[in-house]
Amino acid sequence: MAKKPEGLLIVVSGPSGAGKGTICEILREKLPEMGYSVSVTTRAPRSGEKDGSSYFFKSTYEVKGMIRRDELLEYAEVYGNYYGTPKKYVLDQLREGRDVLIEIDIQGALQIKKRFPEGVFIFIVPPSLKELSARIYKRRTDSEEVIRKRLSSAAAELEYAAEYDYIIVNDVAEKAAGKVLTVLDAERYRVARTYFIIDEICHEKG
Amino acid sequence: MAKKPEGLLIVVSGPSGAGKGTICEILREKLPEMGYSVSVTTRAPRSGEKDGSSYFFKSTYEVKGMIRRDELLEYAEVYGNYYGTPKKYVLDQLREGRDVLIEIDIQGALQIKKRFPEGVFIFIVPPSLKELSARIYKRRTDSEEVIRKRLSSAAAELEYAAEYDYIIVNDVAEKAAGKVLTVLDAERYRVARTYFIIDEICHEKG
Repeated sequence: MAKKPEGLLIVVSGPSGAGKGTICEILREKLPEMGYSVSVTTRAPRSGEKDGSSYFFKSTYEVKGMIRRDELLEYAEVYGNYYGTPKKYVLDQLREGRDVLIEIDIQGALQIKKRFPEGVFIFIVPPSLKELSARIYKRRTDSEEVIRKRLSSAAAELEYAAEYDYIIVNDVAEKAAGKVLTVLDAERYRVARTYFIIDEICHEKG
Repeated sequence: MAKKPEGLLIVVSGPSGAGKGTICEILREKLPEMGYSVSVTTRAPRSGEKDGSSYFFKSTYEVKGMIRRDELLEYAEVYGNYYGTPKKYVLDQLREGRDVLIEIDIQGALQIKKRFPEGVFIFIVPPSLKELSARIYKRRTDSEEVIRKRLSSAAAELEYAAEYDYIIVNDVAEKAAGKVLTVLDAERYRVARTYFIIDEICHEKG
């Protein structure tokens, strides 16, 4: 029996305000069997965020310990706070053949790509910079200073799209999520994930 | 205004009897606006085949002239007959931004891949060797000798799947064609074809 491939690592990324959070919520709803990586962070919870669901909220001391013990797949300090992706959960799920979704900023996605170039890297973009700015202001969960920082880096961040496999414009979140689902469907037929079929056909018992 | 990408070159290939012909017929029906490359061949028409639709039926003298004038994107001699893909049609369509579908044997697909690595290379496989053999016999359009040759090369040909981008098992042609359509949908979001959007967003007029 030929070896079936590991689960698919799906990285949904893009600048703040592109709407990757909403898209990932829709994906989790449509693909409930899929694994979902929950990040650790040292930033304060926004209203409505639950520990273990939105993030694992940790102290700086705890996150630094995880970094020291190499327990994070990637980590970054962004606007004075640490963010990181716990390694064990992701690796375990993939090995068991389960797909794992990671919603992550651009810095983090690029770090993950170095370790997992075989993942599917999807870059979500806003339809326009104007719309991006409107979305960040509408969120109202960040301080004025953070908003200004996010806006000024967004345009520069867009250039990193070239490092990804796919670019999906998020005009309407439901539609954009549908496009991500199409990409995931197609990725299941990729030769790296389907070549075992050839072995099975060639070694079948007549 | 950023430059939009060329049309997509779609290469549907696989061993004889895999059913690529039926799948391509369905694709042409579903995507009538897509260009469809018609090959030249020196083999005799099978019953029902029309010149200019199934193939351009040519003399060996004519095809050798096309080869000499570098008018073929690829060509091969298979079981004593020449097959080739006229270059001009394909290049013109792609430049105009129109997708082009090429249905082709494995030898031909690999030659095209050398010139167009950015094409989408899809390998169609039968669900089993038993089924492949049944299909080739059922066709009854080839001589017994040709059938035996095709069967003995089919298993060896399957190994070339590794050179392709996607593998799609053809159990039911309608379903397999649906999977090809999913792949084509997803390919439209590939970064090489969508990066112009980033340029548009970054250079938009406020």
